[in-house]
Amino acid sequence: MLRSHTCGELRLTDSGKTVTLCGWVQRRRDFGSMSFIDLRDRYGITQLSFNEDYKVELLESARSLAREFVIKIVGTVTERSNKNENLNTGDIEIVVDQLEILNASLTPPFTIEDDTDGGEEIRLKYRYLDIRRNPVKEKLTIRHAANKSIRHFLDGHDFIEVETPYLIKSTPEGARDFVVPSRLNENQFYALPQSPQTFKQLLMVSGLDRYYQVVKCFRDEDFRSDRQPEFTQIDCEMTFVERDDVLQIFENMIRGLFKESVNYDLGEIPVLTYAQALETYGSDKPDMRFGMTFNYLTQVAKGHDFGIFDNAECIIAINVTGGASMTRKEIDAITDYIKRPQIGAKGLIYCRVNEDGSYKSSVDKFFDQTALARWAEHCDSQPGDIMLVLSGDLQTTQKQLNELRLHVGDFMGLRDASQFKACWVVDFPLLEWDEETNRFHAMHHPFTSPIADDLSLIDIAPEKIRANAYDMAINGMEVGGGSIRIHDKKLQQRMFDLLGFTPEEAKSQFGFLMNAFEYGAPPHGGIAFGFDRLCAILTGTDSIRDVIAFPKNNMGRDVMIDAPSPISNDQRKELNL
Amino acid sequence: MLRSHTCGELRLTDSGKTVTLCGWVQRRRDFGSMSFIDLRDRYGITQLSFNEDYKVELLESARSLAREFVIKIVGTVTERSNKNENLNTGDIEIVVDQLEILNASLTPPFTIEDDTDGGEEIRLKYRYLDIRRNPVKEKLTIRHAANKSIRHFLDGHDFIEVETPYLIKSTPEGARDFVVPSRLNENQFYALPQSPQTFKQLLMVSGLDRYYQVVKCFRDEDFRSDRQPEFTQIDCEMTFVERDDVLQIFENMIRGLFKESVNYDLGEIPVLTYAQALETYGSDKPDMRFGMTFNYLTQVAKGHDFGIFDNAECIIAINVTGGASMTRKEIDAITDYIKRPQIGAKGLIYCRVNEDGSYKSSVDKFFDQTALARWAEHCDSQPGDIMLVLSGDLQTTQKQLNELRLHVGDFMGLRDASQFKACWVVDFPLLEWDEETNRFHAMHHPFTSPIADDLSLIDIAPEKIRANAYDMAINGMEVGGGSIRIHDKKLQQRMFDLLGFTPEEAKSQFGFLMNAFEYGAPPHGGIAFGFDRLCAILTGTDSIRDVIAFPKNNMGRDVMIDAPSPISNDQRKELNL
Repeated sequence: MLRSHTCGELRLTDSGKTVTLCGWVQRRRDFGSMSFIDLRDRYGITQLSFNEDYKVELLESARSLAREFVIKIVGTVTERSNKNENLNTGDIEIVVDQLEILNASLTPPFTIEDDTDGGEEIRLKYRYLDIRRNPVKEKLTIRHAANKSIRHFLDGHDFIEVETPYLIKSTPEGARDFVVPSRLNENQFYALPQSPQTFKQLLMVSGLDRYYQVVKCFRDEDFRSDRQPEFTQIDCEMTFVERDDVLQIFENMIRGLFKESVNYDLGEIPVLTYAQALETYGSDKPDMRFGMTFNYLTQVAKGHDFGIFDNAECIIAINVTGGASMTRKEIDAITDYIKRPQIGAKGLIYCRVNEDGSYKSSVDKFFDQTALARWAEHCDSQPGDIMLVLSGDLQTTQKQLNELRLHVGDFMGLRDASQFKACWVVDFPLLEWDEETNRFHAMHHPFTSPIADDLSLIDIAPEKIRANAYDMAINGMEVGGGSIRIHDKKLQQRMFDLLGFTPEEAKSQFGFLMNAFEYGAPPHGGIAFGFDRLCAILTGTDSIRDVIAFPKNNMGRDVMIDAPSPISNDQRKELNL
Repeated sequence: MLRSHTCGELRLTDSGKTVTLCGWVQRRRDFGSMSFIDLRDRYGITQLSFNEDYKVELLESARSLAREFVIKIVGTVTERSNKNENLNTGDIEIVVDQLEILNASLTPPFTIEDDTDGGEEIRLKYRYLDIRRNPVKEKLTIRHAANKSIRHFLDGHDFIEVETPYLIKSTPEGARDFVVPSRLNENQFYALPQSPQTFKQLLMVSGLDRYYQVVKCFRDEDFRSDRQPEFTQIDCEMTFVERDDVLQIFENMIRGLFKESVNYDLGEIPVLTYAQALETYGSDKPDMRFGMTFNYLTQVAKGHDFGIFDNAECIIAINVTGGASMTRKEIDAITDYIKRPQIGAKGLIYCRVNEDGSYKSSVDKFFDQTALARWAEHCDSQPGDIMLVLSGDLQTTQKQLNELRLHVGDFMGLRDASQFKACWVVDFPLLEWDEETNRFHAMHHPFTSPIADDLSLIDIAPEKIRANAYDMAINGMEVGGGSIRIHDKKLQQRMFDLLGFTPEEAKSQFGFLMNAFEYGAPPHGGIAFGFDRLCAILTGTDSIRDVIAFPKNNMGRDVMIDAPSPISNDQRKELNL
């Protein structure tokens, strides 16, 4: 090793030792006859001291060092007169004896500090410098710890990791496949997996009993700020299980993850039905860090000659504890927010509960104090609170009020990124009607089994069938989802049929799975977690780009290596493109 | 859970318990009033017993069960009268109370037994059934244990796993890239990585210090029996290290791997130079399980009027201990083997050492007993041995004799798949001259650093420069390789120059790496292990297909899912293909 110690490990008890350190120059401070250098590596920072009384030529060399130079020094561990309590190594410094420049550095295009002056595009282009910054390095380190925690848990519960193939078969279903032309098989293509779904089911048919994989998946979608063309899944499947077995195992896994990687106790994870989640939060991935649940005023707020309410299918309110102090300007801003086309609310009704117990609403013309008191009673509003009310048709109003709830939650500081709250959502509808294609889509995927009790609806009201499926949401973001799968060939065929597959299409795309179901396929179910999203939540960041070492930008482009890029004509010819 | 226990865990101490088991019918044996079923799952086999005296209708149901049916039973753990010592559960059986068929099975296309009647093609097509067989399941289980052992070691040595991208940039260098057309960037392509080489180097530039990844890599080569278009690497890189640090760390990792996954003690791993390996074994990946090292007879065997020897650049012998008993027919078969065009030897000279100490050679006409005694002395041949001799130009003869040595090693039973012997080979040439393209190729890759002492040769005799590179071989197969990397921009440029890159080519392909070298790139080095090959060796199989859950065949085709396959015209149009 070029070094005897890292820059994070020397302590007062090492005083007097001769050590060799390697690292990067974080900063240099020059005083009359002395210079100090903070030497940085992954493990920490150690102060180096140079003194003209000791070795004048060394001091001169030290003063030639700029930020990010890579150096190797030999020196003596010495107690510092001016201790730095913020550093683990802050009690000591190294009095340098020998200095070697291992590599010079140009001035970086942005400062390598916790708070940098570089914008995202330049930091992505020089990602290898961005990673030197603590906040980025720490996210990658937590990601590793998270990976370790999850593996440790699954290994300990008889799951075995099996690598499924990356070069698979393209299926026209679902989001778009990336395809890979085959040179050896002219005009044929592999596809990159959007998930290892069918393979993990085949592994259950193969009797492996419990499978997992930390695996890259690929989706060629138009990118949104929070999507990447390649992303990582924690993919799991189990045999001979029912829904609650899966929930219990993975609740424990996620609880362990938060405990081990960020020392946070998630507590019990409540289970909501899809219907409850929509009714209470207007969302199938509710942010459970705060209350502000929905109160249905439809009964009490109708019949007051207020046309908007009287013509609405429903009237729903949230109560904002302590929200009476919102100014008119603040309420206007919130109203503007939900009136944006993305949300599309027509307006916002509010009602303050004053400290004296009286009410002040934006619809006082229609509602007297007694009427408003009935609102307050329904919402359990207390003096100092404000009720925010939306109305309209049920589905739209729930959606809009969900957005309002989250926005006000932000406004009130209730969505603290260092607090975590998870929930399960179950009993999703199996099918969604798609107006555009005029047929059903699988809400999860075509392999999800219906809840047994609902099977009788399959011929009469398939839209009412509930899926034996479950999602986990943390802090209002979906982090995982899965289901008990279909393991019966006939039912799978019926499902493909409902989804508008011809028997030929079903056979050509999933024939191997249907075939497998003929040879003793066991009941099975599983789940997949979005590992990037989990890591983003764990590290308190909004963007999954922050927890990916080399992410792509919004156009799916790696600006550091400049990919994608044209290929040569020779290469195209070889591939018959 | 649908079961209370697995099929591998019940013991005599569980007697009297009511248990619920799920699994597959391995086999059924019917006797007059009784039937026995072996119920199988991943964890083992448990015997079920049905008796007409107990429940006659259950016995009838049991007799309707065929192989590979999936069933669930409830019953009582009972001591067996006829114990089976070959099974962990062999002391007990389950007297069945309730039987439920969870899924039926067609008769499998081959028997689900350790020794199956299915050929490889049909087993690949029904891979999910093949995996039910113990030998396949065990290989996948050992693969998982190997993965765990390696991760545990690396985690414990401060390595952090970082996921590098799969959608990267195509480089015309080296073996062929798989490319992925980008829908959002017309006429541009990503490439799938042949290895994460440049990314791991960038991670060292980023200061992450120690990186690893268990990662899929891709190579679009014409397939040989032992190649797959996608394969798994254990990819590692370290900062501030020298060659011997890397060797020591990874020797420990591999030793731990063999100990933990197959309980084998690899012992010390010797280090050979490339020159020594060729001189002694004729191979840069020698099989060290047996001796039979090369003896150079060039000096002693010339000048006997035997033209073939007299005109040869070298004459090399191996001594086969106990080989004097080879029959003429066996020697002829060995001779035929090395005369095949793939090896191309012209013929084989042999000399037996008889039990009485006299010699009998195939060239007695030219060599008398005294002359042959001198051969024996050089080869340390003892009575009962045979010397096998090849001659010709040095390089060709070494290669041919290597093939001969391995073949005779097989013949003599010296290459036992349950024995393991590793070695390091170091000091490879940096460059190879390629007659076809009339330029140098990098023997490892263009990022490998020269040995410092040889740097002075760079302008006068670049072909003599040794690389600071190392390979590990086990049982004659290369399992890993790596090097100390170049971290200096100028040297990297010089290297690209030697390899015939124009500055423009170097910049367009590796500009991001060269750029990174300008910002404080530290000295670094690393290694990558072929995980499939390692697992094949660990499990004593010749083919890496055996340790891959869903391998492709020799044409790069997945015969189970039928990939690659044509894609729709719509899909092609969207991708501008």
